[in-house]
Amino acid sequence: MQKYYPLQPIADIVQLCALKGIKEAVLSPGSRCAPLTLGFVRHPDIHTRTISDERSAAFIAMGIAQQQDNPVAIVCTSGTAALNYAPAVTEAYYQHIPMLVLTADRPDEWIDQLDGQTIRQRDIFSNHIKKSYHLPVDYSHPEAQWYIQRSISEAINLSKEYPQGPVHVNIPIREPFYPEIDEQYFFNPDLRNIEEHTFAPVMTKEHFAPYKTQLKSFSKVLIVAGQTKGDQELGTILEQFPYPVCADVISNYSYLKNAIHHQDVFLGKVDEALQPDLLVTFGNSVISKNLKLYLRKYKPKAHWHIQEAGHVADTFQSLSSIIRCTPKSFFEQWATLNHSTEEYLKDWKKWDEQVTTNMASFLKGQPFSELETVHDLLQALPENTQLHLANSMSVRYANFINLQNRKDITVFANRGTSGIDGSNSTMIGHSLATDYPNVLLTGDLAFFYDRNAFWNSYRKGNQKVLLLNNHGGVIFRMIPGPARQPELEDYFETPQQSTAQQLCEEFGIAYLHANSRDGLEELLPAFIASDQACILEVETDKAISKEVFQAFKKL
Amino acid sequence: MQKYYPLQPIADIVQLCALKGIKEAVLSPGSRCAPLTLGFVRHPDIHTRTISDERSAAFIAMGIAQQQDNPVAIVCTSGTAALNYAPAVTEAYYQHIPMLVLTADRPDEWIDQLDGQTIRQRDIFSNHIKKSYHLPVDYSHPEAQWYIQRSISEAINLSKEYPQGPVHVNIPIREPFYPEIDEQYFFNPDLRNIEEHTFAPVMTKEHFAPYKTQLKSFSKVLIVAGQTKGDQELGTILEQFPYPVCADVISNYSYLKNAIHHQDVFLGKVDEALQPDLLVTFGNSVISKNLKLYLRKYKPKAHWHIQEAGHVADTFQSLSSIIRCTPKSFFEQWATLNHSTEEYLKDWKKWDEQVTTNMASFLKGQPFSELETVHDLLQALPENTQLHLANSMSVRYANFINLQNRKDITVFANRGTSGIDGSNSTMIGHSLATDYPNVLLTGDLAFFYDRNAFWNSYRKGNQKVLLLNNHGGVIFRMIPGPARQPELEDYFETPQQSTAQQLCEEFGIAYLHANSRDGLEELLPAFIASDQACILEVETDKAISKEVFQAFKKL
Repeated sequence: MQKYYPLQPIADIVQLCALKGIKEAVLSPGSRCAPLTLGFVRHPDIHTRTISDERSAAFIAMGIAQQQDNPVAIVCTSGTAALNYAPAVTEAYYQHIPMLVLTADRPDEWIDQLDGQTIRQRDIFSNHIKKSYHLPVDYSHPEAQWYIQRSISEAINLSKEYPQGPVHVNIPIREPFYPEIDEQYFFNPDLRNIEEHTFAPVMTKEHFAPYKTQLKSFSKVLIVAGQTKGDQELGTILEQFPYPVCADVISNYSYLKNAIHHQDVFLGKVDEALQPDLLVTFGNSVISKNLKLYLRKYKPKAHWHIQEAGHVADTFQSLSSIIRCTPKSFFEQWATLNHSTEEYLKDWKKWDEQVTTNMASFLKGQPFSELETVHDLLQALPENTQLHLANSMSVRYANFINLQNRKDITVFANRGTSGIDGSNSTMIGHSLATDYPNVLLTGDLAFFYDRNAFWNSYRKGNQKVLLLNNHGGVIFRMIPGPARQPELEDYFETPQQSTAQQLCEEFGIAYLHANSRDGLEELLPAFIASDQACILEVETDKAISKEVFQAFKKL
Repeated sequence: MQKYYPLQPIADIVQLCALKGIKEAVLSPGSRCAPLTLGFVRHPDIHTRTISDERSAAFIAMGIAQQQDNPVAIVCTSGTAALNYAPAVTEAYYQHIPMLVLTADRPDEWIDQLDGQTIRQRDIFSNHIKKSYHLPVDYSHPEAQWYIQRSISEAINLSKEYPQGPVHVNIPIREPFYPEIDEQYFFNPDLRNIEEHTFAPVMTKEHFAPYKTQLKSFSKVLIVAGQTKGDQELGTILEQFPYPVCADVISNYSYLKNAIHHQDVFLGKVDEALQPDLLVTFGNSVISKNLKLYLRKYKPKAHWHIQEAGHVADTFQSLSSIIRCTPKSFFEQWATLNHSTEEYLKDWKKWDEQVTTNMASFLKGQPFSELETVHDLLQALPENTQLHLANSMSVRYANFINLQNRKDITVFANRGTSGIDGSNSTMIGHSLATDYPNVLLTGDLAFFYDRNAFWNSYRKGNQKVLLLNNHGGVIFRMIPGPARQPELEDYFETPQQSTAQQLCEEFGIAYLHANSRDGLEELLPAFIASDQACILEVETDKAISKEVFQAFKKL
């Protein structure tokens, strides 16, 4: 007969995770969390990985969750381990990525008793979490077991509800943490799993009627896609409209034939000629600063934002209607109407195509620069690349260049909080959950900040980093305020001397280095073709890179 | 005439910091915090350093503050930067280290508007901070300026009040962030600085009378010193007592002639013979697990804890009186009495000296191990060393060996939360604030976790690390629970392959490596004598290290 382990309720937590569809767990080492660790490791349906630096562990888990669109469980011990999760939890919160954050804790009676690794963990993510649960520590009463199981069901359901996000379960655990040799974990197949069946709100023909009426009064219609993972069915619908779709690189709609790509380049120079009557938006954040400034200055008569649930930002200070349905169903209804002429689209396209046409020749006529490096990288991306863009200059450069006709590429960037703290780890997470190539474009501050992303045993050939190493935060040189301060170099750029060479040696990563146009041209194919994890470090003259970028913005 | 900078109230914040005695600021790069950065950099009385990884920056600042016993200001930009401060802020909170945490923020109206680096920063450290202030963003009204200045005065006063700790000021800042070329920062010498004059509560002869009476009823008196920075005047007083003083290595009282050093070694074997009648404690946390277990089992009749203010833990589950005065004044009064005999001290000393006597010969009779490495390091420490002990095995090893007759050494360890996340950075912080040698004893998990401690330009010859690299968390091998699990190696020890060699190359640190007794003997003098930053990496057989440690505990 099966002997029960005294911490059976902890095994039940793991089993419930499995029953509710969690396939992946990222564990960090610790003692207090040992019963959870053993549970996840021993569960046949959950794949586990171990990452020692919790800051990196949480971003890696977030990358896996984002790639799989399914919550990943992360497990850490008590104490500051949980605090190190906070940057990724916050990013996941704003980027709507489902995660189940399981933090082991001391029993309440030991809090503030000067015991090791004991802090106040209840509600530790309070500002940036969908909900926090605190489980009971005494399991013997059946109602306590009911409470634990119900909480786990609720937590996972909630993490998957739109908008998805992280949910925290704080789990106090008493010793002993380890089963005796003859004690087995028992994963009870009959645990009650409270399933939640959700149905996205859909725009019907009847509900669309009033919008149909209103649409007649607008001739200049602008669609702006914020950050999304992309939905090719929605893309097909959007292409039917004779309206411009401003598609930042992170929108994953820049392949549309009516997409506008270079709004950040040309909108600084445009007057009210492109002012929309109606602005329709969906998705999360927009990168293009000039688009934001333009639309805040030349406000539309109406701004409709389509989002099925959750907080809506008033990004352009013109929001008039929040429409609670799926973007696809909304545009589907709208697509059935007769549309106005293509004049307004042509006006946008004229500006956009001018940049597209001149871009490559402009860059080849300039000295070698970071912008050219980004341009060449984006041209060279292999099929089905998952492109990752770090903050801050990398994502901006890539947005200025943008992608065209590349339906096969998916772009990711931590634009929930726009932090530099987890770009490497997020890419590593994605790379572990897919065999497609993962290419991260990053700068040296973001790259070295998160160097512990590579401090694990999960090297794969689909992990590629193009590192723009200008030995400091060159972004501060790009903007006039800091650039004119005597403190620019020491206190804003914060020069740093590292290159990635030693790091590559330490972590078994192939290392390539270019500091010229010819060097890049030679090494880019090798970088793309490399069948092992590879970092291509590109060093350019930062003053030249600045000049080229400034000149590009005048294209 | 002096032209006023529009962000003058921000310059006033910096000036108030200087007027209130803040001498050091640790800055992390960012745009939103630029007015603060410029203020600190330009202030003639404040020394600044720039550290890019905020997790490390905050621990470095904490080390400086602890070394100088004065609050250090830390300044970061908006967004997840602040979250990366949390581990150090929490450690400082529990270890009572004064810090002024200044986080730049967006104005309230931009929160949750999908703008970059914008999260919900109010009360972001809520569980582990003495207080959080949120400043107004509109400064024009004189009452707003009064509010800002009063808040900064209050915050710094509060951080210095016993028990000292971190205080958070969230500072929303509107653009423009940078002065025009002709705009100067003006540091107003006449700003009102609300000084706070505090006087520690002192035990007087009159107040001591009732304790005097009670003391007559106790013959076996045990003093336990928790973690302190040490106070040599108090040490002189304590040495007058014929009572044992259990002095963990982190108490900084192990040099006392009545100190007991090896309680963690021998108390596991002792019956009620050493049970005290009266237990008197002061200071923060105690490391010795066997001391905790012993006193929880063999409880004293009374347990007095001396601490002038703040939360008191019931570490031994026997606390009977919290006495609110300085330990020094308490023991001063007590020292005037006639004391009982030394019998009880002799009982403790007998056990303790047996370990001391046998220790060195025991170790030389065993194969080369980590414990021997720690023993040899502690023997070799140069005069006035600031010894830093990382969690978890390093501080335990050092506590098992302990120091004797070394009044010149001060020991630090992050035992507020016992995290592994900031040991390197804390040592670096200390090393920057003193020219005494700083020697960190650490293991590979803690060391590589916080490798960004070295990602800055602040190398000094007084930075020394002895790294016990056993390529994993060997602590899990030391305790029977995980050691008997099939998952021991992969999921508890979490093997990692790094050595410090590449890191030393990257960061310009001298690198020494030993994996034998002879090698260590040869290199230890070079390590101690090195006039540049130096890491001595020691690799031992982890199975042997475990056996030696287990055998040592039976000494």
